[in-house]
Amino acid sequence: MAGNTFGTIFTVTTFGESHGLALGAIVDGCPPGLELTEADLQHDLDRRRPGTSRYTTPRQEPDQVKILSGTFEGKTTGTPIGLLIENTDQRSQDYSEIARQFRPGHADYGYHHKYGLRDYRGGGRSSARETAMRVAAGAIAKKWLAQFGVTIRGALVAMGEVDCPVTDWSQVEQNPFFCGNPDKLDDLDELLRAIKKEGDSVGAKIMVEASGVPVGLGEPVFDRLDADIAKAMMCINAVKGVEIGDGFEAARQRGSEHRDEITPEEGFLTNHAGGILGGISTGQSISVNIALKPTSSIKVPGRSIDVDGNAVEVVTKGRHDPCVGIRAVPIAEAMLALTLMDHWLRHRGQTGRI
Amino acid sequence: MAGNTFGTIFTVTTFGESHGLALGAIVDGCPPGLELTEADLQHDLDRRRPGTSRYTTPRQEPDQVKILSGTFEGKTTGTPIGLLIENTDQRSQDYSEIARQFRPGHADYGYHHKYGLRDYRGGGRSSARETAMRVAAGAIAKKWLAQFGVTIRGALVAMGEVDCPVTDWSQVEQNPFFCGNPDKLDDLDELLRAIKKEGDSVGAKIMVEASGVPVGLGEPVFDRLDADIAKAMMCINAVKGVEIGDGFEAARQRGSEHRDEITPEEGFLTNHAGGILGGISTGQSISVNIALKPTSSIKVPGRSIDVDGNAVEVVTKGRHDPCVGIRAVPIAEAMLALTLMDHWLRHRGQTGRI
Amino acid sequence: MAGNTFGTIFTVTTFGESHGLALGAIVDGCPPGLELTEADLQHDLDRRRPGTSRYTTPRQEPDQVKILSGTFEGKTTGTPIGLLIENTDQRSQDYSEIARQFRPGHADYGYHHKYGLRDYRGGGRSSARETAMRVAAGAIAKKWLAQFGVTIRGALVAMGEVDCPVTDWSQVEQNPFFCGNPDKLDDLDELLRAIKKEGDSVGAKIMVEASGVPVGLGEPVFDRLDADIAKAMMCINAVKGVEIGDGFEAARQRGSEHRDEITPEEGFLTNHAGGILGGISTGQSISVNIALKPTSSIKVPGRSIDVDGNAVEVVTKGRHDPCVGIRAVPIAEAMLALTLMDHWLRHRGQTGRI
Amino acid sequence: MAGNTFGTIFTVTTFGESHGLALGAIVDGCPPGLELTEADLQHDLDRRRPGTSRYTTPRQEPDQVKILSGTFEGKTTGTPIGLLIENTDQRSQDYSEIARQFRPGHADYGYHHKYGLRDYRGGGRSSARETAMRVAAGAIAKKWLAQFGVTIRGALVAMGEVDCPVTDWSQVEQNPFFCGNPDKLDDLDELLRAIKKEGDSVGAKIMVEASGVPVGLGEPVFDRLDADIAKAMMCINAVKGVEIGDGFEAARQRGSEHRDEITPEEGFLTNHAGGILGGISTGQSISVNIALKPTSSIKVPGRSIDVDGNAVEVVTKGRHDPCVGIRAVPIAEAMLALTLMDHWLRHRGQTGRI
Repeated sequence: MAGNTFGTIFTVTTFGESHGLALGAIVDGCPPGLELTEADLQHDLDRRRPGTSRYTTPRQEPDQVKILSGTFEGKTTGTPIGLLIENTDQRSQDYSEIARQFRPGHADYGYHHKYGLRDYRGGGRSSARETAMRVAAGAIAKKWLAQFGVTIRGALVAMGEVDCPVTDWSQVEQNPFFCGNPDKLDDLDELLRAIKKEGDSVGAKIMVEASGVPVGLGEPVFDRLDADIAKAMMCINAVKGVEIGDGFEAARQRGSEHRDEITPEEGFLTNHAGGILGGISTGQSISVNIALKPTSSIKVPGRSIDVDGNAVEVVTKGRHDPCVGIRAVPIAEAMLALTLMDHWLRHRGQTGRI
Repeated sequence: MAGNTFGTIFTVTTFGESHGLALGAIVDGCPPGLELTEADLQHDLDRRRPGTSRYTTPRQEPDQVKILSGTFEGKTTGTPIGLLIENTDQRSQDYSEIARQFRPGHADYGYHHKYGLRDYRGGGRSSARETAMRVAAGAIAKKWLAQFGVTIRGALVAMGEVDCPVTDWSQVEQNPFFCGNPDKLDDLDELLRAIKKEGDSVGAKIMVEASGVPVGLGEPVFDRLDADIAKAMMCINAVKGVEIGDGFEAARQRGSEHRDEITPEEGFLTNHAGGILGGISTGQSISVNIALKPTSSIKVPGRSIDVDGNAVEVVTKGRHDPCVGIRAVPIAEAMLALTLMDHWLRHRGQTGRI
Repeated sequence: MAGNTFGTIFTVTTFGESHGLALGAIVDGCPPGLELTEADLQHDLDRRRPGTSRYTTPRQEPDQVKILSGTFEGKTTGTPIGLLIENTDQRSQDYSEIARQFRPGHADYGYHHKYGLRDYRGGGRSSARETAMRVAAGAIAKKWLAQFGVTIRGALVAMGEVDCPVTDWSQVEQNPFFCGNPDKLDDLDELLRAIKKEGDSVGAKIMVEASGVPVGLGEPVFDRLDADIAKAMMCINAVKGVEIGDGFEAARQRGSEHRDEITPEEGFLTNHAGGILGGISTGQSISVNIALKPTSSIKVPGRSIDVDGNAVEVVTKGRHDPCVGIRAVPIAEAMLALTLMDHWLRHRGQTGRI
Repeated sequence: MAGNTFGTIFTVTTFGESHGLALGAIVDGCPPGLELTEADLQHDLDRRRPGTSRYTTPRQEPDQVKILSGTFEGKTTGTPIGLLIENTDQRSQDYSEIARQFRPGHADYGYHHKYGLRDYRGGGRSSARETAMRVAAGAIAKKWLAQFGVTIRGALVAMGEVDCPVTDWSQVEQNPFFCGNPDKLDDLDELLRAIKKEGDSVGAKIMVEASGVPVGLGEPVFDRLDADIAKAMMCINAVKGVEIGDGFEAARQRGSEHRDEITPEEGFLTNHAGGILGGISTGQSISVNIALKPTSSIKVPGRSIDVDGNAVEVVTKGRHDPCVGIRAVPIAEAMLALTLMDHWLRHRGQTGRI
């Protein structure tokens, strides 16, 4: 309830700042009997990890997660799962400037005025570093859902002016962009090189989808599945837009065009709805698009003020991703998995089904 | 928690089906001392009410709301506010067809499979009729927020292929479209006439904004203000997309373009962020766009199946809005107001500020 | 979250003041398919209803409950169940005195200082009249639980100095005291006559038990079944103590005496634990004792102050129960039923069992 | 929601098993600006710690707590506070017997049937070892409340047949029993020696009280302050009964005796209510009694069954407290502090007061 818990009966609560001692999470409500080891979490953590290509920040965060509780002899016991990642790469940087400045596009201004003080080192709590715990927790949800045939995957579908809709899912993990469109790899590479040269950054569009989802998930009227997915996505750092199915395109459509017809032979003939009608999953693939703003930490000087209201020029010196959207793919997958698993347990609780 | 409650410490719980005896809501956590009468709620209910123009369904729903508790001598007492609207226009229609069919684009399929049975009369619980209670509850939030200078307003900004960005807010309430662009009224009228003639429907795009919001609302990392707004919007019937600030446009921008710079003299120079950074309000106007799909109930025949899996042709006979997006304006305003008020009380609780 | 909702995934939210227009509740999360009509709720409402004997207040509250939503063709649909009882016996009493006085033992003082204003008519929100909705909601839970063989019953086991432990459950509903000890009926009658003559009131002790509860309900470590039962009981007006199983007697016992041994033939040999170990139900009967303080509204004059801090003498004039404990029996049963049903659904959600 | 979180807007979520790698907690919603270091938490942890006297288990648990997040330069930042205690004394014991037996009076039976598997080492999650995190979190709440003049203290008031009501609070911390009655120290010592000799255990009664609590805390009708205190107490291991104020004694009283009269000069003349009326604090001291059952782990052989239903004789071999009630004093204080702080923030959120 205090803001750092996600979910209702399957919950994830996280703690940790960018340059603190550690990041941690408590995953509560996981059904007993799921085989689970640290290796299950590490795969997605490694996908999210920075420092793996020249397109992401060279910071080294090994992100070795430890499971501190909730499993016994390799299986979940139904008790809370404690997760911990100790921070190792805490550069003894000089923070005297950032401590008093509100970097444009950053959370500094809000945190300062909300709380009266803030841990400014590396963005503190507002750093995307926190999402490592979501990815670890999401991996638990993914594994649990996989038992029932649910698969979740995501890809970069646009970066700046380069559109790269998925043409071949098998390629997504073969390049540092999570791009499923081999023809666009050169364009993306070129764009990012230019962006880095300019000391600037660029936005991105991600898609995530879940297949194998049973019909029935979602609790109308407020906790609709799409509503909770929208929240799950929008609470990812830098996300500014969420679409389910056709999304904003639906605003331009006719009813006869948008509605997904059904036949006895083929089931749903189209999936404009993105797998959710009336807030409840239909059994079709759930498809979600999200927009991420460009990284706010750039080398291009920007005007701002300091905590005393004086004008300052802000130039980011640290190591930063030119496009935060890239690494958002495993994060979005994780948030979708967490949402689906929570709704699964809620649905099962109320109806006894599945 | 069971799906029909919105908010955390300021909550709205609703009940009621389209053709049931009544709709109701309990608004809990409203601060004491707010002057409140039924007239305060009726204004927005009348704005949402169908039957007021030829562009909306001719169904007559007077939607007279009663306050059953929670006020005393014209003021809120801090105890739960019970709201009730009795249903009057329950046509004794023949539902034998709809009872067994899954209308394309509707919630029928999901409700049937989730619950095993459903109140099919007029869509039952999945009908947008339920949103009347949200509008009533939202009017309480609007009035409470207004004391502190917060103003919320909304408008239609696109319908089908007609874009109609607001050029004059004073015009929004002067036409049946909630359109703030007088030059586009003829286009909208023309489009809707054509749509009705075809027996079809059309999608729409709405924008809502809140001005006067103090800095500091929002509880990172999961209950960010933008995340809860995204949920609030996506849980409105027919909504398929949500944007905060520049939304999907941000995916195409450079960091130097997107970030809102600040100067001592003018404060924020731009508002690409839509008034929220790091999940916390910045004091700028909060701006939100939402996309609504076209009404699913249309006269154009569509293929579907019945509960036994047999092929059926579905043609909607009832009275329906050709564009549900129009009446969504007061609903979206209400959901934004509810979200802001809940976050206001949470922020005040944790920090003692405001 | 705002205080007027009970439960987590099966929830009851109530509204209404003693002398307001109506009392209401929303029961959310009830599984679909349960046969439910108003008659199912009326039985317990009639048991709780005042005016049925000379031992309770002569106020006439027919308490006719209406189901406004959530059922269709006699069955629950899984959507929220709206309940309403219109208030009829609102005597046009003179409240000028009570409006400014803090009656000793009453909630007046707290409500006044918490909220700054209060509906003083008949105690407003703090009146036990509100519990009618709990009884109605509890009847739904009772009926749902009964499908699985769970039975809930309660009885008065002490009033003032008269102890009346249950000796014959079949007698409980045969007398106006909910007393299962026929030998003590005369003592109770005599005590209450004396109490009424003195213009005083008296406390009571109630026991409630649930049999047929499956093993496994309860979510350690905080939402233990016994912890949630303790809350459920303590939130009943006038309750000052709660015991599970042996309760305070356990403080005097030896471990070898308290622990319930198990044999293959007979299962648990004793039930000192009251059916709950480690916060989880064991399959034995759950037994709960509660203590209720004497009615605070009495004719014996008492010293207090008014809202301005002046000394006043308070004498209650209205019609009141000499022992609120009597009518608390159906209320306690209802709260136990609500707690068990919520935990049942939670358990089923997490584990898929039952 | 999943059972391991306490509180609504000020929350504590814990993880960890008796013999796992570590215990941890996330304290979320703590207001910013509170000076906080590990030393603030260690004091109460040391009070709870076993191995400090011959009356408690000789197990050595240094219980050194680390604050991993949520503070910066010695002050809380409003972000979640991560707490960790690494387990050190994990004896490589032989658990082959306990793994398959249901020890009488223990949680084994419930955990086994609820989850299908359990971490049986030292009781796993059901061990009172988990309460170390509550004590650490409670110390934060105590420190925060102390700023406003709220003081919380507790004492042992009975053990077995020895009643030892507090006569001198200054003595409570001067003996290993938390006993505030110097005349009874010899009796307690004698009792415990006898108990240990017999290989048995004994129950206890604890009282905790909070002074300096402002009027107004508590959210009727369900989240009454007393109701949430009842839950807070009953969710402590081994607790079987809770009383507020006069508790069960109130069942024997007359209304004229129980109600607390008020005069302008002296305020409340008595405190039978225990500082709470109508679920809201009155500004008087809040007083709570709890009953704890005797330790279930004893050397006296007991009959039980194993997981296959075969008869077994259970004799506890490990190191255990002969009276768990003793060490429950700091735990009960912590739970009271957590409850009060959560209600404080809720009250402040809704009303803007305090």
